[in-house]
Amino acid sequence: MKIETVRITPIAVDDPPLRNAAGLHAPYALRTIVELVGDNGIIGLSEVPGSNSTTKALEDSVEILKGLDPFNINNILFKLNHYFGSENKVGFEYDERGRAPWDQRLLVHVFSAIEVACLDLIGKTIERPVVDLLGGRCRDHVPFSAYLFLKEEGAGGLFEFSMDSDATGWLSARQEAALTPDEIVLQAKSMCDHFGFTSIKLKAGTLPPDIEVACMFALYETFGKNVPLRIDPNAVWSVETSVKYGKQMEGILEYYEDPTRGQKAMSEVAKQVSIPLATNMCTTSFDDLPGSIQLGSESIILADHHFWGGLRTSVELGRICQTFDRGLSMHSNSHVGISLAAMTHLAAAVPNLTYAVDTHYPWQTDEVIKGGKLKFTNGELAIPDGPGLGVELDHDALNELNKKYKDCGLTHRDDQVEMQKLDPEWVFESTRW
Amino acid sequence: MKIETVRITPIAVDDPPLRNAAGLHAPYALRTIVELVGDNGIIGLSEVPGSNSTTKALEDSVEILKGLDPFNINNILFKLNHYFGSENKVGFEYDERGRAPWDQRLLVHVFSAIEVACLDLIGKTIERPVVDLLGGRCRDHVPFSAYLFLKEEGAGGLFEFSMDSDATGWLSARQEAALTPDEIVLQAKSMCDHFGFTSIKLKAGTLPPDIEVACMFALYETFGKNVPLRIDPNAVWSVETSVKYGKQMEGILEYYEDPTRGQKAMSEVAKQVSIPLATNMCTTSFDDLPGSIQLGSESIILADHHFWGGLRTSVELGRICQTFDRGLSMHSNSHVGISLAAMTHLAAAVPNLTYAVDTHYPWQTDEVIKGGKLKFTNGELAIPDGPGLGVELDHDALNELNKKYKDCGLTHRDDQVEMQKLDPEWVFESTRW
Repeated sequence: MKIETVRITPIAVDDPPLRNAAGLHAPYALRTIVELVGDNGIIGLSEVPGSNSTTKALEDSVEILKGLDPFNINNILFKLNHYFGSENKVGFEYDERGRAPWDQRLLVHVFSAIEVACLDLIGKTIERPVVDLLGGRCRDHVPFSAYLFLKEEGAGGLFEFSMDSDATGWLSARQEAALTPDEIVLQAKSMCDHFGFTSIKLKAGTLPPDIEVACMFALYETFGKNVPLRIDPNAVWSVETSVKYGKQMEGILEYYEDPTRGQKAMSEVAKQVSIPLATNMCTTSFDDLPGSIQLGSESIILADHHFWGGLRTSVELGRICQTFDRGLSMHSNSHVGISLAAMTHLAAAVPNLTYAVDTHYPWQTDEVIKGGKLKFTNGELAIPDGPGLGVELDHDALNELNKKYKDCGLTHRDDQVEMQKLDPEWVFESTRW
Repeated sequence: MKIETVRITPIAVDDPPLRNAAGLHAPYALRTIVELVGDNGIIGLSEVPGSNSTTKALEDSVEILKGLDPFNINNILFKLNHYFGSENKVGFEYDERGRAPWDQRLLVHVFSAIEVACLDLIGKTIERPVVDLLGGRCRDHVPFSAYLFLKEEGAGGLFEFSMDSDATGWLSARQEAALTPDEIVLQAKSMCDHFGFTSIKLKAGTLPPDIEVACMFALYETFGKNVPLRIDPNAVWSVETSVKYGKQMEGILEYYEDPTRGQKAMSEVAKQVSIPLATNMCTTSFDDLPGSIQLGSESIILADHHFWGGLRTSVELGRICQTFDRGLSMHSNSHVGISLAAMTHLAAAVPNLTYAVDTHYPWQTDEVIKGGKLKFTNGELAIPDGPGLGVELDHDALNELNKKYKDCGLTHRDDQVEMQKLDPEWVFESTRW
């Protein structure tokens, strides 16, 4: 089997004005959809975070990929590495004159996009689900976590900072402002009612810590001790602030995600606070793992196949977590159903991925897959039926969201620029509190 | 697809009287051959080190395996773990009342036997080579190393300690005694002439170190600096002895394998000798890796899919070696062609398996696969053609070697007992020199 061609389609999906440490979500989240067309007529799909540079890199890859065997992923990654250049050192000859400076993070997006599409193509060809290409299912259903945001009023997209007056239920709650503990509790109740989630995470680092910590206590009082809670200040708290508020939250948190910046600071917090620390910021690549193990910077690594180079490498990360007694959970960005399906197959295949998985999926109303949004039951998603990822592309929806991409004018994610539309003085600070 | 049944066949193959730190090879090496029969009529093969207890464990597994999906290896390992009990802690519920005490090392042999047979069955079913189920080929040919032994006269098997007077070439050299540097050089020349090997390893730890080190210098003088050399004293040298002789061999060794026992002692040698240390003795399981990383006990891990639980886990070990800047090479025991094929697929699939692989294969003249012994060209083996492992069982040969197993009366490997037939006073010493 050979790759006949590859189609790359950038899309934009409505995204509400969610706050985070970097600023504010734009009215559209950008994703890039990959269709890897096999010479057997079968198409493998994938989805990665979008930007002009990601689209360009993937488009540049097309001529390299044509004619390669999708089963030989090592060879494909070798060819991509060779073309783009790499700091990766082991096993292959690399082009010393690679197109440096090339962002390694962009390269892992390219790897992830192509690897997942290869696995989908293989799975659809041999009529087996992707989970079977990753070692087989350890569970049939994957639990996800409610992912709460402090936010401005608005639904995103056309309704940017205003309200869609026809919305009801979660679609209504989704567009409400949430800037106080009471409003966060309302958001949580609506999201959990609608999706059945039984774990809750709050994206923090955007309002003063006492407000965000008050949100956690309000959630704890509302949902009780049987609903695991997590807070993620996105590393903008100092060690001192992280320790102070961490100690307050001992006993109410399942884990404490990236309170502070860098492995050294995280390890200092870890020594002083009796809550497991989690990260998708201080340990985000295989190169970061030796430092993590040496310093003890976190107890739980939040995998993300988009950022770790694909599904197989994420399974390998799972083995490393098991070997070095790290927990494993999963990070998310705004995304649609192809990424959600891939995340579900991965989470089902990793024995030790035992935490509910993060997902922004409830915040996105647009979809590119046939049948519309995937459905959560009791906060869980069944591994999609069917071969490969178990999802098919809805080309009408894809075209519509590609038009939205072209029309919206966004070329990359910049949360600071969006926040400055509300507060022109606002600038990102790596340690704010 | 489901597993219909599993056939377990212990075999014995002729093995010459090779010396090592544990004593002497018996006239027969024991292996166990697994045939995993799919309900599609296709059969997956594997081979593991043999013993009565391994055969019994595999036979006990048959009823568990029947009806399971060979694609769902995670589920199969879970069921086996659950049945046998395990000290493995993460990800699955284990039977606390497992059939303890159960040797974890035996369990990884069972895992390896079943996992490799599943991968062969999958590969033969979807008509792809096993290397493609491990990420695809990084190389088409795998280099192997000459594996020299100090030995008594004799060819093993019927010719135990006597000579087969019809033998010529390597088959003649194979039965000569080799207890001096000159005799080791003759053995090396014959083996390298016949197989084309361009790396050389000497199994040591059986004669006083000055003799074995003299063998290395004799090899260096004969083959020159372009033929990488390795010595493996099997951990029976003290730290002091390892350092003393290690310093002498600086500049002539590619790596220094297990001179001394345990991670702590190895790390002390590593600090004092400027030769990379390799191990298949102090770091032999995922549980050993944190200690290895903390102590710096070796630079190179010698993988062995029979001892690390299979091919997929060995690929994961490769990722760990890459992540923590360890080299990766491969250990061997006496074996026939199914193991050799599996080792070749694995070595082809791991980007950083860049050393020539150990193999005892030249010492074994018996074979269970169709077409007889696999052929080395210039010391390399091409990935076998065809789906799965690319080898098929010769049932006549299997039956003959099974008869040899029954007739020889051996139930497990005991090199001390064999050595005591030569020297009744001989006993194993964990640190001899």
